[in-house]
Amino acid sequence: MPSVSTQADTTARLLIDCPDRPGIVSAVTTFLYHHGVNVTELDQHSTDPEGGRFFMRLEFQTPNLDVSRATLQQAFGDVVGRRFDMQWHISYAADRPRMAILVSRHDHALMELLWRWQRGELRVEVPVVISNHPDLREAVERFGVRFEHVPIDAATHADAEARMQALLHGQADVLVLARYMRILSADFVARWPRRIINIHHSFLPAFAGADPYQQASDRGVKLIGATAHYVTADLDQGPIIEQDTARVSHRHEVPDLRDLGRDLERQVLARAVRWHVEDRIIVNGNKTIVFA
Amino acid sequence: MPSVSTQADTTARLLIDCPDRPGIVSAVTTFLYHHGVNVTELDQHSTDPEGGRFFMRLEFQTPNLDVSRATLQQAFGDVVGRRFDMQWHISYAADRPRMAILVSRHDHALMELLWRWQRGELRVEVPVVISNHPDLREAVERFGVRFEHVPIDAATHADAEARMQALLHGQADVLVLARYMRILSADFVARWPRRIINIHHSFLPAFAGADPYQQASDRGVKLIGATAHYVTADLDQGPIIEQDTARVSHRHEVPDLRDLGRDLERQVLARAVRWHVEDRIIVNGNKTIVFA
Amino acid sequence: MPSVSTQADTTARLLIDCPDRPGIVSAVTTFLYHHGVNVTELDQHSTDPEGGRFFMRLEFQTPNLDVSRATLQQAFGDVVGRRFDMQWHISYAADRPRMAILVSRHDHALMELLWRWQRGELRVEVPVVISNHPDLREAVERFGVRFEHVPIDAATHADAEARMQALLHGQADVLVLARYMRILSADFVARWPRRIINIHHSFLPAFAGADPYQQASDRGVKLIGATAHYVTADLDQGPIIEQDTARVSHRHEVPDLRDLGRDLERQVLARAVRWHVEDRIIVNGNKTIVFA
Amino acid sequence: MPSVSTQADTTARLLIDCPDRPGIVSAVTTFLYHHGVNVTELDQHSTDPEGGRFFMRLEFQTPNLDVSRATLQQAFGDVVGRRFDMQWHISYAADRPRMAILVSRHDHALMELLWRWQRGELRVEVPVVISNHPDLREAVERFGVRFEHVPIDAATHADAEARMQALLHGQADVLVLARYMRILSADFVARWPRRIINIHHSFLPAFAGADPYQQASDRGVKLIGATAHYVTADLDQGPIIEQDTARVSHRHEVPDLRDLGRDLERQVLARAVRWHVEDRIIVNGNKTIVFA
Repeated sequence: MPSVSTQADTTARLLIDCPDRPGIVSAVTTFLYHHGVNVTELDQHSTDPEGGRFFMRLEFQTPNLDVSRATLQQAFGDVVGRRFDMQWHISYAADRPRMAILVSRHDHALMELLWRWQRGELRVEVPVVISNHPDLREAVERFGVRFEHVPIDAATHADAEARMQALLHGQADVLVLARYMRILSADFVARWPRRIINIHHSFLPAFAGADPYQQASDRGVKLIGATAHYVTADLDQGPIIEQDTARVSHRHEVPDLRDLGRDLERQVLARAVRWHVEDRIIVNGNKTIVFA
Repeated sequence: MPSVSTQADTTARLLIDCPDRPGIVSAVTTFLYHHGVNVTELDQHSTDPEGGRFFMRLEFQTPNLDVSRATLQQAFGDVVGRRFDMQWHISYAADRPRMAILVSRHDHALMELLWRWQRGELRVEVPVVISNHPDLREAVERFGVRFEHVPIDAATHADAEARMQALLHGQADVLVLARYMRILSADFVARWPRRIINIHHSFLPAFAGADPYQQASDRGVKLIGATAHYVTADLDQGPIIEQDTARVSHRHEVPDLRDLGRDLERQVLARAVRWHVEDRIIVNGNKTIVFA
Repeated sequence: MPSVSTQADTTARLLIDCPDRPGIVSAVTTFLYHHGVNVTELDQHSTDPEGGRFFMRLEFQTPNLDVSRATLQQAFGDVVGRRFDMQWHISYAADRPRMAILVSRHDHALMELLWRWQRGELRVEVPVVISNHPDLREAVERFGVRFEHVPIDAATHADAEARMQALLHGQADVLVLARYMRILSADFVARWPRRIINIHHSFLPAFAGADPYQQASDRGVKLIGATAHYVTADLDQGPIIEQDTARVSHRHEVPDLRDLGRDLERQVLARAVRWHVEDRIIVNGNKTIVFA
Repeated sequence: MPSVSTQADTTARLLIDCPDRPGIVSAVTTFLYHHGVNVTELDQHSTDPEGGRFFMRLEFQTPNLDVSRATLQQAFGDVVGRRFDMQWHISYAADRPRMAILVSRHDHALMELLWRWQRGELRVEVPVVISNHPDLREAVERFGVRFEHVPIDAATHADAEARMQALLHGQADVLVLARYMRILSADFVARWPRRIINIHHSFLPAFAGADPYQQASDRGVKLIGATAHYVTADLDQGPIIEQDTARVSHRHEVPDLRDLGRDLERQVLARAVRWHVEDRIIVNGNKTIVFA
């Protein structure tokens, strides 16, 4: 859990993904030290000390950085990145990522995100909210956020996605599906790899597909859940970011599960989005490493 | 949650399952009142106020009961049961149910049950522990409980089940599978309808079948779970009694999931068994009503 | 947990508080049955089967009620209430209670309540929101709710309370302090017995008084909490309605605790308010019985 | 959460506590790298990037360590420790800490520890269990563990503590109070600084002192808790290591709270002890940093 103070605009983060071998932490931290940087958080993970893959996230403070961002990039790649065959990138908290939201009719997940954004908990810009229904226009515009209605059905699917793509291309860094009830095409998804976050209203992999609360009621489970995950071409199969559950009983009918589930969905999606925009997540195959 | 005091040996419980219609609670409680009985707990549930099914559990104290048990039975059936087309039964906390335990090599769920039984939390008798391995004999006999080793493999399956059936028939009221790793035949299960409780080491219906912790690790879930359920002929598909989850992260490898999972399994199975032996569970189709 | 269906406008609830003795449930349910009422939920609690106090809540459906509300009231008092020396009342889901909200500057608890009210989860009317600061006027009026700014300080305390009392008298059935940071006088509180709900941002009785998140940080607790309680003349000492906790670590500085705590406060207050307006709470001395 | 594999006997841990300033991580990891060590876990925490205190825990694998333990100690102190004014120490998983247990009559916390130790979850030696009652001798000796009965009352307090001190001196590295119901003198506690772990049966700081479940019942809380903490001369005031809570209601009488609380106490104490023996805890003033 980050302290608020380290999310100041002087905070930068370095994410690293490379083959594990001795000396990585030493090389990275020594490089940063020599450039006047103070490391305030450091998390690492190795899938296996022998022949595994190594992941690291550092937060550092840049007020005393002795070079420009571009020079730092260049130097880190030359001195450290290449040596360890790293995939890496540096981001700066001052550069707010642009988060577009797709939604259908249920407003709870959308409202939760906008409300957290408005109070400064989510340090992003919100360029646009897109919906396949017009219902939520007023609720969105009240926050001073642009709303676009893009109707979509089987016949118009390709056109509608093209229109969404036109609205989003170059305007957004991450898409959040806040109960967007249409399935995006593999083609669309491929344009946003690891950059679309969905909230599914079950404890995946249980109750994938349609109407999970009905499925949960039919099976008689004693807990319901919600799952935030990255969207891939395989429906409900993408890397899981966050999950949570709530206790239910025989007294909960399907509408009660939906009521309770809304609260879960709001909390789970809000955590997942926050971790994404603070660059706390690395995707490793079909799993996530979350340095939360 | 019951108060300990109401689990005294003077406590009786009445379970009812019948078509819902007005007047049931009035008829039942009036009958009991006229026989000098003090109702100390009353739970009810209707699947639908119109044309649904009605379930009720009462606990009552019998010190002032004005008739014998047999007479009470007879009279309740004649006066109330028949009128409302009820399935019902009365049990007495003084009559300890006999709980046999089946186990393989993992001892944690078994030890948890024996320990709770020894300290009086589980008000049962334990006539026998049966295992397909000899390993846990000493651990079981230390509690003063009989241990029977019944080896079983594909070739001997029918004989082994026959031997178990011989050990259990007339000796047990409920069977608990405390990590018993062999699949019981449909024939065996049919002899113990709604009287075999299993602990599955996942959050069912996710990860049914073999090695659920490996499955959970492969899928990258952020919570693991355990599920206690009644055993039916369909593997891992029986009515769920209780479930719980625990948080995990990318740092948990499969052995860590097993470690954490053991604690979940112990807690979930212990609660399910307690509810069963206190007659708190009614099975309705493939779901349970738990008046906990 | 209620099913949504039973909260229909045809739902009525009967709350009872009386000395325990045999025959109460029988008398109550027989009375209702004879008046064409279908009981859909029944909860009871006795503090002690011998000489204790008895509490009961029933939900029943009124479409076939054979008498007027007034007649039902009269008859129940005459036939049952008096016989068992009951305190009792009947309420109807169709009569929405009027919930006034007091707030200072923190908007999260207020927004949560208004949002749940707007979507129909909280079946109340909201006659007015009163604040000692003007900041939240626009946010409140967007919901179509009246906002009144009543500044208050040590010098003007009595006058300000008189003004609030004038705004509320006859206009509200329950007051919710959604992070209202001024202490109400004993005199004011006495006018709203068991009808003021406060959310305290700690796990009471730990960290009563000012700045509980700072206190929690100083003590180094591993969980933070929130507590919804009825307000009495003794600050933070009133009957507790609901509590919850969330896990924290050494990484959470005070602002992080406030962040996390906001989510707890919203959830805990929302549950408490819902239980109150659905008449699920009976106060027994300094404790609550919650038939949730 | 550690993976089991990293707790192999080749694992070593380095704990550091020093004034924060740039370059610490670089210096430490570079030193270890140059000695053939592979760092498999690294956690750090700073109380404040400017002028704060810095804490770090590393796990590393020693198969390729190029020097003796003594030389590593010497070199680390000379090259790194002194430069940064560190308090530090290195421990080796192969050296099992010796954990003595003090208990009175309640066996649940004791049994939980012995049971986890027996199955290899707690990698310690258990030289002795000391009790002020003789009751648990057989239960302890069954595990092959020495049991010593040291009666204690007001008159004999000093003598009894002297006898315990004689039994423990040089024989134990950590003392666990597994529901030991006598208060240890300040003098005794001073001999075991940050090396006595107690389990308190409430969510401290709520309900410090005697009979917390009675206090919890009297106050009508909706959650009960348990707290594991280091023992200091101030009763129930020492640094908190771990806490957890469980939901209760008006139905739970004091004996029910004790029942439920036992499960909490077992889990919370087991986690705290495991973290201690794996050198995951650093005490900072009256708070703990737990690198779990």
